[in-house]
Amino acid sequence: MRNIVVLGSTGSIGCQTLDIVRSFPDEFHVVGLAAGANHDLFRQQIAEFRPRHVYCIDPPADLAPGIDFMPMEDMVCLPEVDVIMAATTGAAGLQPTLNALRQGKAVALSNKEPIVMAGPLLKDYERKYGGAILPVDSEPSAIWQCIQGETNEIRRLIITASGGPFRTMPLEEMAAVTPEQALNHPTWQMGPKITIDSATLMNKAFEVIESHWLFDVPWENIEVVVHPQSTIHSMVEFTDGSVKAQLGPPSMRLPIQYALFYPERRRNPDDSLIPRLDTSIAQALDFRPMEPERYPCFDLALATTRQGKTYPTALSAADEVAVNAFLNGKIAFTDIYRVVESVVNTHQPTPAETLEALVAADTWATAEAERVVGKLG
Amino acid sequence: MRNIVVLGSTGSIGCQTLDIVRSFPDEFHVVGLAAGANHDLFRQQIAEFRPRHVYCIDPPADLAPGIDFMPMEDMVCLPEVDVIMAATTGAAGLQPTLNALRQGKAVALSNKEPIVMAGPLLKDYERKYGGAILPVDSEPSAIWQCIQGETNEIRRLIITASGGPFRTMPLEEMAAVTPEQALNHPTWQMGPKITIDSATLMNKAFEVIESHWLFDVPWENIEVVVHPQSTIHSMVEFTDGSVKAQLGPPSMRLPIQYALFYPERRRNPDDSLIPRLDTSIAQALDFRPMEPERYPCFDLALATTRQGKTYPTALSAADEVAVNAFLNGKIAFTDIYRVVESVVNTHQPTPAETLEALVAADTWATAEAERVVGKLG
Repeated sequence: MRNIVVLGSTGSIGCQTLDIVRSFPDEFHVVGLAAGANHDLFRQQIAEFRPRHVYCIDPPADLAPGIDFMPMEDMVCLPEVDVIMAATTGAAGLQPTLNALRQGKAVALSNKEPIVMAGPLLKDYERKYGGAILPVDSEPSAIWQCIQGETNEIRRLIITASGGPFRTMPLEEMAAVTPEQALNHPTWQMGPKITIDSATLMNKAFEVIESHWLFDVPWENIEVVVHPQSTIHSMVEFTDGSVKAQLGPPSMRLPIQYALFYPERRRNPDDSLIPRLDTSIAQALDFRPMEPERYPCFDLALATTRQGKTYPTALSAADEVAVNAFLNGKIAFTDIYRVVESVVNTHQPTPAETLEALVAADTWATAEAERVVGKLG
Repeated sequence: MRNIVVLGSTGSIGCQTLDIVRSFPDEFHVVGLAAGANHDLFRQQIAEFRPRHVYCIDPPADLAPGIDFMPMEDMVCLPEVDVIMAATTGAAGLQPTLNALRQGKAVALSNKEPIVMAGPLLKDYERKYGGAILPVDSEPSAIWQCIQGETNEIRRLIITASGGPFRTMPLEEMAAVTPEQALNHPTWQMGPKITIDSATLMNKAFEVIESHWLFDVPWENIEVVVHPQSTIHSMVEFTDGSVKAQLGPPSMRLPIQYALFYPERRRNPDDSLIPRLDTSIAQALDFRPMEPERYPCFDLALATTRQGKTYPTALSAADEVAVNAFLNGKIAFTDIYRVVESVVNTHQPTPAETLEALVAADTWATAEAERVVGKLG
């Protein structure tokens, strides 16, 4: 029996995590749930899973009578908690993730921003306190699965990218795309922030960053290749030149379940939950080089992150503001890049060794990004 | 330092094995070499690797003055031998492989016929005497690489097949194909027997049989899918639905090197020996279902093998005769199936528990196949 806390339980990953939990009633006990402002769904989840502790934004008085409200950063530290699914969005997951790692807990990390903002600090906590960061995102999970049982050096990571909804759009039309168009991802159903990040390929840069820290692979040995079908989730080349890939129909439930049962694999009792690779139909898996001019956020994110210090924190904060501004109709799609670039160019970095330094950089970059959005809007 | 014996050293796999041995002069010592009738090349190999023991067919008197001639089945038993590369063709590898396993040696098995003829006996010897069968063929090697570090049940093996040179030929033209056409394999450079077996897909059935025995996967959980590019060498689906694949440009040197250093991976000092996956070019990996009516040998081989006893031995012997008869212009390409079918249909099976029973079945089936060839030719 694993005692689990789900942060972001009403989001896409949170709901799919609860699908897995529901499939294995004898394996999981939900200790705590934390959500945003989707109170109706949260109420249903509380009724079904009966957690002892809950958290949400602006809770109505009758949400969870008799159930203890507790901030996320405390909930993850409860001694009975074995594993945390960190599936919030943006910077909100940073402090709970750091706290959980400081308690030596296992953190299934779906929320990429904490590791982008504070990769070295998270790895440092993992080493020091004996906890574990378990990848949940499809691409890092693929890499993680491919390196099982392999003890020699990784020569190259090949991270696949669908290319998003604008992979073939003429570049001059990109300024005019609407949030509806950008939210219409060709292969993955995800939350709004990560879907927009997938359209700019900011998300792919975040996966490169995550993989760099999680698997300790030098930047220059991580490649991105466009693979529109999203069937191969990523590949690893080993020192002898052999390449392994992990593949299957796009589905987040598989990497969620893999992280929760790691190092075991389990067959889900509900065969409809995790789709299987269909070999009975003719199909093609296409690969092509990524066009950097189509996705300027990708290079910007990696160049910024490689500068170290609080640069990646500022990058992540600026992107969060810019994506929200685009979703709210305040700026154009191509302005996302402009906002982020302007913020990281004026950022005064400090060492990223404490939560305080990260919070300060996040606060500054959020305000600065809002200022730039105001000027553009 | 690994003491190695190479059986079939002048064949395609033998030469590529010696390429790997040559790349790691401090890792291998060649104790013995055995070849067929290519005396010129064998002379060069003896001069280069200076083995203490050699064997070949009809040796000229001046071939290896002062070097000990020794039959293959004795050479593999020498106490100093650590690993044997069994890369002969056809039934010739059976007795040396069985002897090596009875001595608890590691046998890198490129020659598929022994495991087709005597799969249960080989596995029994491996268990009893503590030796190991190390897959060398590209597809079983891919499966072997994919299962490293995985401890749970295999749900499905997906073995890829290029489809051979006649994948798109109108069926009514297949009777008239020449040995030259059949030897022109689209993706793999191999010896003549296996190349013809690849055109009939007999070779793919042999890989299914090999994988069934080596990885202990039930027949009904092994699939074959046509993949013309031969980039993905095979795939494994695990119990949770996750699929892993091993891939790379077609090259036998990689699986050879993997088997010889297993469980380690090594970077070959000569970067030109093992080609790397190129992600800088646009490419498509195609998959389509196999057409059973195009490849009748495939179903015949599996149905025959599933009957057990000495049936697979008779199958393998009949195929060896039929392929040679086709290569020598005695029968048509489509007669290969006819010969094999006729032999297995008249075979009187016995239990396949001893070498004697296997040899008797092999002898009978060889003679019977020659009789059928004579009638057809």
